[in-house]
Amino acid sequence: MNKLNIGLIGYGVVGSGVAKLLNQRKNYIRNKFKTEFAIKSVCDVKISKRDTSGLGRAYLTTKFEDILEDKSIDCVVELIGGLHPAKEIITGALKRGKHVVTANKAVISTFGRELFRLAREKKRNIYFESSVGAGIPIIKGITEGIAGNKVQRLYGIINGTCNFILSEMTKNKITFSQALKLAQKKGYAESNPVLDINGMDSAHKLAILTYLAFGKFIKGEDIYKEGIKDISHADIEYADSLGLVIKLLTIAKKENDRIEARVHPTLIPKEHPLASINGVYNAIYLDADPLGELMISGQGAGQMTAASGVVSDLINLASKDYDENLICNIYSEAKNVRIKAINNVQTRFYIRLQAIDKPGVLSKITGILGKHGIGINSVTQKAHNWMAAVPVVMLTDYITEKELRQALDKIAELSIIRKKPVAIRMEKL
Amino acid sequence: MNKLNIGLIGYGVVGSGVAKLLNQRKNYIRNKFKTEFAIKSVCDVKISKRDTSGLGRAYLTTKFEDILEDKSIDCVVELIGGLHPAKEIITGALKRGKHVVTANKAVISTFGRELFRLAREKKRNIYFESSVGAGIPIIKGITEGIAGNKVQRLYGIINGTCNFILSEMTKNKITFSQALKLAQKKGYAESNPVLDINGMDSAHKLAILTYLAFGKFIKGEDIYKEGIKDISHADIEYADSLGLVIKLLTIAKKENDRIEARVHPTLIPKEHPLASINGVYNAIYLDADPLGELMISGQGAGQMTAASGVVSDLINLASKDYDENLICNIYSEAKNVRIKAINNVQTRFYIRLQAIDKPGVLSKITGILGKHGIGINSVTQKAHNWMAAVPVVMLTDYITEKELRQALDKIAELSIIRKKPVAIRMEKL
Repeated sequence: MNKLNIGLIGYGVVGSGVAKLLNQRKNYIRNKFKTEFAIKSVCDVKISKRDTSGLGRAYLTTKFEDILEDKSIDCVVELIGGLHPAKEIITGALKRGKHVVTANKAVISTFGRELFRLAREKKRNIYFESSVGAGIPIIKGITEGIAGNKVQRLYGIINGTCNFILSEMTKNKITFSQALKLAQKKGYAESNPVLDINGMDSAHKLAILTYLAFGKFIKGEDIYKEGIKDISHADIEYADSLGLVIKLLTIAKKENDRIEARVHPTLIPKEHPLASINGVYNAIYLDADPLGELMISGQGAGQMTAASGVVSDLINLASKDYDENLICNIYSEAKNVRIKAINNVQTRFYIRLQAIDKPGVLSKITGILGKHGIGINSVTQKAHNWMAAVPVVMLTDYITEKELRQALDKIAELSIIRKKPVAIRMEKL
Repeated sequence: MNKLNIGLIGYGVVGSGVAKLLNQRKNYIRNKFKTEFAIKSVCDVKISKRDTSGLGRAYLTTKFEDILEDKSIDCVVELIGGLHPAKEIITGALKRGKHVVTANKAVISTFGRELFRLAREKKRNIYFESSVGAGIPIIKGITEGIAGNKVQRLYGIINGTCNFILSEMTKNKITFSQALKLAQKKGYAESNPVLDINGMDSAHKLAILTYLAFGKFIKGEDIYKEGIKDISHADIEYADSLGLVIKLLTIAKKENDRIEARVHPTLIPKEHPLASINGVYNAIYLDADPLGELMISGQGAGQMTAASGVVSDLINLASKDYDENLICNIYSEAKNVRIKAINNVQTRFYIRLQAIDKPGVLSKITGILGKHGIGINSVTQKAHNWMAAVPVVMLTDYITEKELRQALDKIAELSIIRKKPVAIRMEKL
């Protein structure tokens, strides 16, 4: 029988879920994995206000140092989130020879290089399955499940709040703010949802996935991001009529020594499996050599879903102790690889303009596009309303961001154009 | 640096793919996983006819005993398929202290209990990712990725041949035999496709998944199976009009100490993510406590796809050597658990009858169904053709197989019924 003493730091929603699951599955884990977990100490700044009734004789504290200094603790489970003192907790634990399990996307994406290097030096492991897609085995799938493959492209729907909002806007024809309110009511969005809505949460997760897929540490801050608050009904409906749906997609691609890493609303074909990922569900979809396409999807948020990932990490940790070879996966860094600036990224675009409905207008617009080398694949002008502004929707061929922005600036200057042109990127997948 | 000597048994499509991939990724694996694999010997009954040019100085033989007796070999990769001598190769390797990697669904599903017990006794591992869904990390996902969860229901589309045929029949409105010919032409079906078409291949894979999910060894032979050869266009089209698609689904459920394990054509809602798995793609979809729903899908067949799974197994094996705790996953067996006979399985049914179009016919049919306690959810009679036989399509409520069969026998005896009634099971998912 394997015994592991745990120090749990952060006893909020996920932390109490972990304690509950370990308690519920005590016998199951003992019989199946020959392992016993004991939560020896629990630290939370508000510990006196928490319901600690299920914690038995665990030592309760408000100081994380108490846990770091306790020599009997084998593994620190860090569930406070954010950068500090999460980073200090993790480095402190590793330096004292303790393994770490965390669900903290911010700290892993921001300090990953330093933390993984320290873990290797100290021969201790960091498990972080719940940092992306909660308990969905995305991290394990990429690092171990397809070991030996080279990932070429990776797409993710990894923010449940945004996916819920876009799904509701599409399905029930409600506005962004109505959908956001519904998400908050259902507990799918925080009262301050800005990090979800603006793509920052997705960018942190994408930074982790980019490292796992391409061996390159990038920071969430360095990833190009565009949120979903400007997505309008008109665009959802035009997309629908073109056989497309809008998703907040995290995208990472590698070609030679250049990486694309970006988060933005993206049009994808309706029949693609990613298009069927609705509501708070999460998914990653990737193309690996030689495996081919792989998609892993499921419930990516919620107390017990996140707790599931943490407990799976603990079981995997207990079964391996320090694992010199697989941890390399989480350390070796690709050299000379650089992020491509968004201006140089090639993609296709959906463009919607409000243009005065009179002869010669389309030729003016397409003339400017043509001058910038932008080919047009499809043009839709649904309504006719002589001399009034009507929407014109176009799909472009592959073009760099820079060329498109230059052309749109020129088009916006035309006297026949009302409102700022809308441009949404498309992926063929 | 970790070094592992491999003895490769079976140098056909997958075997040569494994050699090719290990060769291609030599530096990548060395740098990322600090591991070197050397293919020391290759055994194949037709070795003299194989292209062995990429094997360097590997020892070539037609006798697997040569590999078993070679003390320098750490791991035997068994890729000959079938029960014998695959079983003797695996037991022989374990007894001599060698690890085993195999892609053989038949041998694992038939002799799993014995093989895993022996592996545990000898402190050696058996890796078998490619036995289900080739390189898609399904085995790892269930055993390690969601460790600590209890699986409640599991559905799979795990036979690419059948899924290709049904997808083609649905999309391009061709017949079963046309679709089968196309599958053979494209290399997706063997010249003798019977084990795919009749569900036996899926049943072997389901036996493995049932063990992983519920800790119960069952044999492919003990699983109820129905193939796809009787699926007609009429049913595909009626299903479509009801918002349903037909898939060859492998189904495993557990309730208390009873397991359902079955393979048959199944109607599922079009909007379910499994419905978007088309062509030769594979998927498993499961519901686990507390994670919730999880789907893993991708390319589940092909030389390099299968080779990808074998190489991932090798890398994982190299990183862990004997792993006492995770192997328990692959040994402890649930006691008192039994398979439910198909007659006692409750499900919903789609029924199609050819009935003479005259007054009172529906009431006769529904009368018999009612007497057997079968509620009807929907009735469709599209064509009217006075006094001729027209199709009547009904969806039932949940009912046991036995009650349905008894009712259908009675209905078939009615003078107004032409042809044998068609019954296809439905899953709500």
